[in-house]
Amino acid sequence: MSTTDTVEAELSPVHRRGGGRIGRKALRGAPMASFPTLVRNIPVYEIVPDEAVELIHDESLKILEEVGCEFRDDEAISMWKAAGADVSGTRVRLDRALLMDLVAKVPSEFTLNARNPDRTVQVGGNNSIFIPMYGAPYVRDLDNKRRYGTLDDLNNFHKLAYMAPALHSSSSIICEPMEIAVPKRHLHIIHSALKHSDKPFMGIVTSKERAEDTMAMAGLVFGEEYVKDNPVLVAITNCNSPLVWDATMLDAMKVYARNNQPLILAPFALCGASTSASAVGAVAQVNAEALAGVAFTQLLRPGSPQLYGQFMVTVDMKTGAPMGGTPEAAQMMYLMGALARKYSLPWRTSGFHVGSKLNDAQAGYESNMLMHAAILAGANYIWHAAGWLEAGLTCGYSKFATDCEQLVGWYKYAGGLPFDDFQEAMAAIREVGPQGHFLGTEHTLKHFESAFFMPSVMDFNSFEQWSAEGAKDHDTRGSEKARNMLKDYEEPKLDEGIAEGLRDFIAQREANLSDTLN
Amino acid sequence: MSTTDTVEAELSPVHRRGGGRIGRKALRGAPMASFPTLVRNIPVYEIVPDEAVELIHDESLKILEEVGCEFRDDEAISMWKAAGADVSGTRVRLDRALLMDLVAKVPSEFTLNARNPDRTVQVGGNNSIFIPMYGAPYVRDLDNKRRYGTLDDLNNFHKLAYMAPALHSSSSIICEPMEIAVPKRHLHIIHSALKHSDKPFMGIVTSKERAEDTMAMAGLVFGEEYVKDNPVLVAITNCNSPLVWDATMLDAMKVYARNNQPLILAPFALCGASTSASAVGAVAQVNAEALAGVAFTQLLRPGSPQLYGQFMVTVDMKTGAPMGGTPEAAQMMYLMGALARKYSLPWRTSGFHVGSKLNDAQAGYESNMLMHAAILAGANYIWHAAGWLEAGLTCGYSKFATDCEQLVGWYKYAGGLPFDDFQEAMAAIREVGPQGHFLGTEHTLKHFESAFFMPSVMDFNSFEQWSAEGAKDHDTRGSEKARNMLKDYEEPKLDEGIAEGLRDFIAQREANLSDTLN
Repeated sequence: MSTTDTVEAELSPVHRRGGGRIGRKALRGAPMASFPTLVRNIPVYEIVPDEAVELIHDESLKILEEVGCEFRDDEAISMWKAAGADVSGTRVRLDRALLMDLVAKVPSEFTLNARNPDRTVQVGGNNSIFIPMYGAPYVRDLDNKRRYGTLDDLNNFHKLAYMAPALHSSSSIICEPMEIAVPKRHLHIIHSALKHSDKPFMGIVTSKERAEDTMAMAGLVFGEEYVKDNPVLVAITNCNSPLVWDATMLDAMKVYARNNQPLILAPFALCGASTSASAVGAVAQVNAEALAGVAFTQLLRPGSPQLYGQFMVTVDMKTGAPMGGTPEAAQMMYLMGALARKYSLPWRTSGFHVGSKLNDAQAGYESNMLMHAAILAGANYIWHAAGWLEAGLTCGYSKFATDCEQLVGWYKYAGGLPFDDFQEAMAAIREVGPQGHFLGTEHTLKHFESAFFMPSVMDFNSFEQWSAEGAKDHDTRGSEKARNMLKDYEEPKLDEGIAEGLRDFIAQREANLSDTLN
Repeated sequence: MSTTDTVEAELSPVHRRGGGRIGRKALRGAPMASFPTLVRNIPVYEIVPDEAVELIHDESLKILEEVGCEFRDDEAISMWKAAGADVSGTRVRLDRALLMDLVAKVPSEFTLNARNPDRTVQVGGNNSIFIPMYGAPYVRDLDNKRRYGTLDDLNNFHKLAYMAPALHSSSSIICEPMEIAVPKRHLHIIHSALKHSDKPFMGIVTSKERAEDTMAMAGLVFGEEYVKDNPVLVAITNCNSPLVWDATMLDAMKVYARNNQPLILAPFALCGASTSASAVGAVAQVNAEALAGVAFTQLLRPGSPQLYGQFMVTVDMKTGAPMGGTPEAAQMMYLMGALARKYSLPWRTSGFHVGSKLNDAQAGYESNMLMHAAILAGANYIWHAAGWLEAGLTCGYSKFATDCEQLVGWYKYAGGLPFDDFQEAMAAIREVGPQGHFLGTEHTLKHFESAFFMPSVMDFNSFEQWSAEGAKDHDTRGSEKARNMLKDYEEPKLDEGIAEGLRDFIAQREANLSDTLN
């Protein structure tokens, strides 16, 4: 079975039915290896009334006015002074007029360009995209053993991301290629993402120099001038909760925002430890932190596209361990979504991020506690949507393949309930009448392939059939799916001149970089 | 550790924080072994606009007017004729005025009494309750082996249902005690539920005689006169989709509705086979079927409490196998909720019903695909909320214990976001300031035990700690939890005279019942 066949088979439910406009659009251009941007066709869920959102907003602004936020970088401090903020050392107190003026400059929607224009997506507004995980030092490999990640693993995950129809990005550091020296690692990460997939990707943020290397490599692929104005990647910057934007993050912001590349401004909050032990209190704090970051990007380049964001997990108050798919994590997601809409900001959350060590029942419960909330909260950039295990320490092949399949279902879900064949369906009921069955009706014959989500890693066979096939649990089937996908992988085309340019760039930079951190 | 301690430990998050009124109420009367009725403190999610709900409603009514519904029982047909329906043979065509007049007689809320008044719950309106699964011939036992269920297993599941704080009912046939002859089995099922738990339970519906035995046994516990008017159990009646209410179900309805005992009127729909291959079409059909059943109960006893309901799974269109937690199942749940609210009917859906054979990742993804929808759809009677595996063929001990823990989280979730300590939390942020941590603040010390859901079957320990403890997957930990709970079980008090009365009744009935079906 070819890659195209595989993808077509997975696509069919959405192709022919879900998502209305998307479905029809997808039908026109076959074959395709990726769903277009998910245009949401269901309403958002508001967990609290508007007054509660206003109250949280107001408390966030009071924090920035009274306590302020640290910006630990001289240039940033100078810029804040010039903008009229109340600055004392590295502490920046922002009055609400200044803050909201800056936040209002961020576009509510932007285009994120892929090297293959068919993979270009729309971020913000009523659009959602799914992005694989980021940052795992470990992998749970195809034999379900936990070990350090390697460049081979990273290549594999970029291949899987390319092949998964509902993933809209290749991320970048899905796992760390631990065998490569840290100062050189970023070059190989970006190279792998650009080589093995043609979807949008994510930038490196661990230093100014590495962010610049990322931009240089993007320039080789997209054109040096093009990447000064057109978003081709997204980069993550985390506030150190509570209320600190540090020099490394600010450096990354400078490189990317000045090139009009969108940043995610996302406090990384361990709720109960780096925030108060209150879900609402945590949201008010994280909102303040994210808004301060968003505002700073608009000093760097007014009107540059940005993503308001959050990563919020509760901690086990006995051990301090981060948890994953818990009720409060879902509830906080709804609040963040409501705030993002209030500010008309594109926003990022996380989907399948779990605490489970294995792709087991816990992982499943956690995953859909969170993804269900991400979808109904109307998140635009749904990150960590494939592979995540163990609070992000591990990327699992089985989990990755599982998540890719689940995303096809979520894509269909968010595409809404199709009413276009409703009268036909009612005619089928009249035709069948009491005690009949529908399998032979014209409506069924027309719609049976597309009516319902038809997963393959999930198993709905009879117990006897399942037993005859080895009584495999989902974790085992997930690994098999990943292995089979990798067998079918075919590399997307990349101009040989560009490919050579990337290799030369890496060689040249490596010649100038030490193998050790200094 | 005593049962009370176990339950108190599990209760603490909800006790002190979630659910506001509920939380405070729970605090007053300690010790308790069960959460009170869940009073929802979050809004419902409406997946389509009101016009779409009206459209579905209208199509459902047209089906009942034009096609009609079969009622395969002479007495039922006579009653429909007397009520003025258009009857032809066993086909009953209902005009919308008659139908809606009858539906309007059903109370929007009712009290479901338990033999221990502290376990009495409220059904309908803004209340939700969780009920364990029903009807499994197989169990997946404490050693994770699949085999036929026994009376010992059933006793165990009733014990677990009693001990689980967020379960509000003992169900009845959680698994079938397969070693007991079918004609006598119902006596032992009801006896086990009444003996091992003091929560509300569910009636037997497989024949008129067995329904009458159920009522007689309920009468021994609650008083013969009491159970003629006061709901003490809920019984399930399924429409045979499409559009057939058969004699067995109608007989059960007669017994229970005439005694004012609530029925669930729930089509059992394999969407794509017994309905059209359209989620919206399936809902319109199931709505028609359920409304016809609800209306009939009001001929039997006007004003009797009833539950509008559905069991809807999509089928794999290639094999006909029922699926579980798929996107369409969740979407259809939202539609059914909207319709129930339109009719002001208490309504039942299913929570954790999955197709997975094991308590593995698939089971987890499916479970929270559905429970998340059940909670946001505002379901009142959330059935199959513990134990369900393999499309209901199997009840798993590990799954049961897992679900019981997850329900504590969902109970907290639906209790809403507590704002009562919001100002305190904001004071904590001012106290801590940038780069501090919150673990020592007064607010944290006051709230650390109750702020966040703290599961124990789910594992958030470090990889090293988890490995040292045997690197157990969730399925294994679930079985251990079930085993440990059973060790701590203490039987609730039951008056010795009543206990003897039940034993005598069973002995007397068994003397008159054959071991074989005739």
